[in-house]
Amino acid sequence: MIVETQFARFDSLALDCGVTLSPVDVAYETYGALNAEKSNAILITHAFSGDAHAAGVSKEDGKPGWWDNMIGPGKGFDTDKYFVICSNIVSGCRGTTGPGSINPATGKRWGITFPGVTVADMVRLQKMLVDHLGIRKLLSVSGGSMGGMQVLEWAVSYPDSLASAIPIATTARHSAMQIAFNEVGRQAVMFDPNWNNGDYYDSQPPGRGLSVARMVGHITYMSDESMRQKFGRRLRDRDKFGFDFSADFEVESYLRYRGNQFVDRFDANSYLYITKAMDYFDLSQGFPSLAASIERATARFLVISFTSDWLYPTYQSIEIVSALRSRNRDVAFCELPSNYGHDAFLVEVGEQSEMVRGFLAQTLKQVSK
Amino acid sequence: MIVETQFARFDSLALDCGVTLSPVDVAYETYGALNAEKSNAILITHAFSGDAHAAGVSKEDGKPGWWDNMIGPGKGFDTDKYFVICSNIVSGCRGTTGPGSINPATGKRWGITFPGVTVADMVRLQKMLVDHLGIRKLLSVSGGSMGGMQVLEWAVSYPDSLASAIPIATTARHSAMQIAFNEVGRQAVMFDPNWNNGDYYDSQPPGRGLSVARMVGHITYMSDESMRQKFGRRLRDRDKFGFDFSADFEVESYLRYRGNQFVDRFDANSYLYITKAMDYFDLSQGFPSLAASIERATARFLVISFTSDWLYPTYQSIEIVSALRSRNRDVAFCELPSNYGHDAFLVEVGEQSEMVRGFLAQTLKQVSK
Repeated sequence: MIVETQFARFDSLALDCGVTLSPVDVAYETYGALNAEKSNAILITHAFSGDAHAAGVSKEDGKPGWWDNMIGPGKGFDTDKYFVICSNIVSGCRGTTGPGSINPATGKRWGITFPGVTVADMVRLQKMLVDHLGIRKLLSVSGGSMGGMQVLEWAVSYPDSLASAIPIATTARHSAMQIAFNEVGRQAVMFDPNWNNGDYYDSQPPGRGLSVARMVGHITYMSDESMRQKFGRRLRDRDKFGFDFSADFEVESYLRYRGNQFVDRFDANSYLYITKAMDYFDLSQGFPSLAASIERATARFLVISFTSDWLYPTYQSIEIVSALRSRNRDVAFCELPSNYGHDAFLVEVGEQSEMVRGFLAQTLKQVSK
Repeated sequence: MIVETQFARFDSLALDCGVTLSPVDVAYETYGALNAEKSNAILITHAFSGDAHAAGVSKEDGKPGWWDNMIGPGKGFDTDKYFVICSNIVSGCRGTTGPGSINPATGKRWGITFPGVTVADMVRLQKMLVDHLGIRKLLSVSGGSMGGMQVLEWAVSYPDSLASAIPIATTARHSAMQIAFNEVGRQAVMFDPNWNNGDYYDSQPPGRGLSVARMVGHITYMSDESMRQKFGRRLRDRDKFGFDFSADFEVESYLRYRGNQFVDRFDANSYLYITKAMDYFDLSQGFPSLAASIERATARFLVISFTSDWLYPTYQSIEIVSALRSRNRDVAFCELPSNYGHDAFLVEVGEQSEMVRGFLAQTLKQVSK
């Protein structure tokens, strides 16, 4: 399945901060076919470092999508049955307008003059894209991690526009620890002299800082157990004591590699904006409780968490489930066994596919009635 | 209890890497009085960022010692009964010879020409200090975190020189995750241009990198729960949405503060050397199993871990206990309840004091027989 990223341009996007972006571009991909009733569309929302290329093989670089094991013919999100859409978020750096885009007012890149963006802003732009595609009501919105935050925001902001919601390995609001890990990443980026207050597009990007930020991220995406299985205490290319400050242990060289790799495909300013949006996201904000906030949602829910995910631990999914149940909403919940930590939502295909497949089939049945 | 750090100088210290440091200085403090039989001495070994000032009030700066709540008259390590010693480790930066010391051969500071140091090297120097003080056999050696690694090394390297051992919140070898967190800190330091390949003593130290490293460290020392209780999602000095990249949340400003504070008292090169020593430490190295290695120890053991310590989780303490029990060694173990994460060994005074007090009294009784 060779896919090509498409682009849509909208006149303007009004942001929560009061600023209006004009125009705004959105990168997106679609998989499968929209039926005549336009009732089989599913929106996939991506995590922090994801992009519009969720499935298939990229025509551009030949790489598989970030959730290719879950989206495709016969897979959990079965493209023989459903029309699947995924778009890059606003403030991203993978085709949608963000801090690396040109500010039409100045003719220069925004950098950190780009306005602050919220998860609700990301969702607002997705809604414009869905409208643009002529879809009145989505069969489902699904995503993991920050993608799950967007799912929750969709459910309360546009309750009539989705029949079901599948938030995975996510939370209704970041804990102090989640904010803290993001803050370390931001400080690493901003401490890199090349960051230059966000103005580096015509020179060297803050690759060292961004690399350290990504290394921290990768640790939090894994688990003690998955790291033990993958690396243990194995030394890299020697078996005797070699005390220097190069990468002695395999886990060190892996992290350095992943850190460097990230620098090639991600914009440091987008890193700052997106992590701030995650930290500020609080579905209960302005409401006396999460339950009072989430009762605006009318979709049926499937909430999934993973046993070894210590970054988005199961108790955060249970908070969502409890809030929904306390308002008598239709919600199924499953904590799936996995050693992969937070990465589980990307790699644990088996049971997750079964859960999603059955839930979508049931939703389609209810919608078709 | 006003205390003053003392210094001892030894002609030489032979390191595991083959290099001999000559001379070598040791900073140490003592609390309480050594009895006539010299049978009531306890060595306290410090954690990664600790120093010789474990208890009392510093004559120099008026600050309490890092384990002052555990060491003193009537406390867990009761200085009315015991003579307590604590010394700064070799490769440290708090008075003992380290990378910030002058290399006598060149007249310049060592920087990263300082030889690689192991936990066994740290213990070898402590043994020289204990000999210097005329103590043939310690009543106990105790410490938490990296201090616990030194306790384990003491028990197997000098089995006849200690009657008991109290390793707390520690491990016989770092997991891949522990190595990974240390590596992130090292990369943050080494990526700071001011690090300048370790040669910064006559200019600006790599404060930004060291600060980021310390921020990561602090997160791993706390727990999800303790961070929630201490900070939650409280905003710092405004209660409305203020999207910029200053510290919006209290947890952010706390981490920045602790990061900056650390830069004033710690040498970045020591950070590199000490974390490498921790990562390379493996009590089982050269032996078919941890049990086969630890059976050299003849001391009686009290092993303590804490429920919410996810950096040095209880299973690592249980590995030590199992290895000791499998060789029929005298070992007591307790996992104490705490929300404080790895910091628990520094702040959970109540039960920890009771455990230590009883164990030391019993050890003294056995020694006096």
